Amino acid sequence: MKRAIELAKKGTGKVNPNPLVGAVIVKGDRIIAEGYHAAYGELHAERHAFSNLTEDAHGASMYVTLEPCCHHGKQPPCTEAIIAHGIKKVYVGSDDPNALVAGKGIKQLRDAGIEVVTHVMQKECDALNPVFFHYITTKTPYVVMKYAMTADGKIACDSGASQWVTGKEARLHVQESRNALTGIMVGINTVLMDDPQLTCHLEQGRDPIRIVCDSHLQIPLESNLIRTAKEVPVIVATLSDDAKKAAVLQEKGVQVLVTKEKDGCIDLKNLMEKLGEQKIDSILLEGGATLNQSALQSQIVQRIQVYIAPKIFGGSGRYTPVRGNSVTNPDHAYQLQSKEIKQFGEDLLIEYEVCYGNERR
Amino acid sequence: MKRAIELAKKGTGKVNPNPLVGAVIVKGDRIIAEGYHAAYGELHAERHAFSNLTEDAHGASMYVTLEPCCHHGKQPPCTEAIIAHGIKKVYVGSDDPNALVAGKGIKQLRDAGIEVVTHVMQKECDALNPVFFHYITTKTPYVVMKYAMTADGKIACDSGASQWVTGKEARLHVQESRNALTGIMVGINTVLMDDPQLTCHLEQGRDPIRIVCDSHLQIPLESNLIRTAKEVPVIVATLSDDAKKAAVLQEKGVQVLVTKEKDGCIDLKNLMEKLGEQKIDSILLEGGATLNQSALQSQIVQRIQVYIAPKIFGGSGRYTPVRGNSVTNPDHAYQLQSKEIKQFGEDLLIEYEVCYGNERR
Repeated sequence: MKRAIELAKKGTGKVNPNPLVGAVIVKGDRIIAEGYHAAYGELHAERHAFSNLTEDAHGASMYVTLEPCCHHGKQPPCTEAIIAHGIKKVYVGSDDPNALVAGKGIKQLRDAGIEVVTHVMQKECDALNPVFFHYITTKTPYVVMKYAMTADGKIACDSGASQWVTGKEARLHVQESRNALTGIMVGINTVLMDDPQLTCHLEQGRDPIRIVCDSHLQIPLESNLIRTAKEVPVIVATLSDDAKKAAVLQEKGVQVLVTKEKDGCIDLKNLMEKLGEQKIDSILLEGGATLNQSALQSQIVQRIQVYIAPKIFGGSGRYTPVRGNSVTNPDHAYQLQSKEIKQFGEDLLIEYEVCYGNERR
Repeated sequence: MKRAIELAKKGTGKVNPNPLVGAVIVKGDRIIAEGYHAAYGELHAERHAFSNLTEDAHGASMYVTLEPCCHHGKQPPCTEAIIAHGIKKVYVGSDDPNALVAGKGIKQLRDAGIEVVTHVMQKECDALNPVFFHYITTKTPYVVMKYAMTADGKIACDSGASQWVTGKEARLHVQESRNALTGIMVGINTVLMDDPQLTCHLEQGRDPIRIVCDSHLQIPLESNLIRTAKEVPVIVATLSDDAKKAAVLQEKGVQVLVTKEKDGCIDLKNLMEKLGEQKIDSILLEGGATLNQSALQSQIVQRIQVYIAPKIFGGSGRYTPVRGNSVTNPDHAYQLQSKEIKQFGEDLLIEYEVCYGNERR
């Protein structure tokens, strides 16, 4: 199963909104085939493994990280292939997260006389696909809030200068997130101040769909995002009914998405629903501080990546990663759960999961 | 040597301003004695070990974490005891940090025909005594800045409420720092706002000497610190020449320490020199944010302990751990080096060393 998990990871950034899945077929003590879901629309892991068989699979066992599908989608059901190849025993990691189909794949296999062992290294298998599990159950994107701060909690000096808080290695890792997630989102202030590209700078990286929260449709036509909107998709979310500006933007290749309003701002929950409908299963939220606060308040954030640089800026506190209404007392804080700590060069990355259940704001 | 290091740690909080030292005597493959420096004024580790011998030490080897002393202080020189007991070989961890005596202990042993191996697990042995190494070479206290913040860099909500940012386990660990370090220092604002005790709440813990930076001698006579000054020492550092208030404080058991002035504030470097003269070898700096900034600017801080709670407060940024003049651009930040990460309950502790060498402010 460990090997199947490794294989699954090879699809990172290419299978969305499908899950990462890996499969290994074993006969006696020999691995006779390996497979994984390599790209959206291509073979599922199980069928990919069957296409790689080095000997007949009759009587063999299969390890697969996710419950095999039993329905016709872009690909025919994997259960049929498993039965047809005479597999004798199947070890399954994660259940299918879609409550409507969960268990049906396993039942089909068992009905065909195949022994099925479920929940094998389930935690590790589930961890392959937080995005998929979230998206399939909520139909909204899995949102990863990312920020980089100093050891005293500053994202910029009082002058506004912020290049660079973190070092090369940490910045490279952010590019990997851009590659792995389907969309990237910023507020209009970030566009006005930094005029970013928001593309993925990795060789052979996949550019994320660029999403700007721009209530009043202020985005400049000469900005880098608009100039390149025909090469890499741009979605501008807005409350504005300025049809003229919208038309100009559309002509430049931009999708203008009008959302509901909430407290005078874009209703982020509504925006997430609309983006979910467009098969955007995951978003990297790259700030700034005010959008970060709104996103937490709207409960659209699932994960927070905090890069911490070994530096102290001091200052007035004008530039901190989450800015806006403070919680009224520490007991009402947004609660996180620390998941993982990694080191990138001299910087640390702490990954948190957001726990909205505990909220009492 | 590993065992010697473990033994050395048993003296934590009791030997200051002496170093932690451990010693193990080995004959064949048997440990025939163990010892450590248990408290200031008591036996050195080597002599403590000799007092615990289970058989004759002639021909045995000794492992000791620090170069044995060769001078008469509170205790007679350890080199004499080593020679007198017929030890054949000595393994030494750290060099004596005092440049004037370093190497002399080793030379005495070698002159007596004892084989000496130096720098055995030196890094680990040096790490036992950062305070001692700093104090002996600079004659000023080793200062540990400690603060607790949320994952978005806040030390309190905008309302000022800060109880509690971190959980029980992290707070307990702070008590261990209070036990291990000789002094504790806060600014007058902390006294006026929180009226803290600043004692060590551990059973059998040692209360640190309490130091308040109070330029204008504003400290209230009814504050907890002043009320308890006869039980646990209090030093009030000030620029004030208010002899009357000073006399009242002194009568209550407080030591009033007038320091030089720098930019209208207490000259912290000068204060550290004065505290060093009083054998205060180490200080836990428990903020607040403005004193933290001054301490960094004055280059008196050697280590920073950042507790990070898995919470987000949001807010205006009024309450961040280091507040005052911002550096003008990220390249001019105070540079740290990440040393260690520990988990206390749900909170993390990142320990940094401050690198003033890289400063270009």
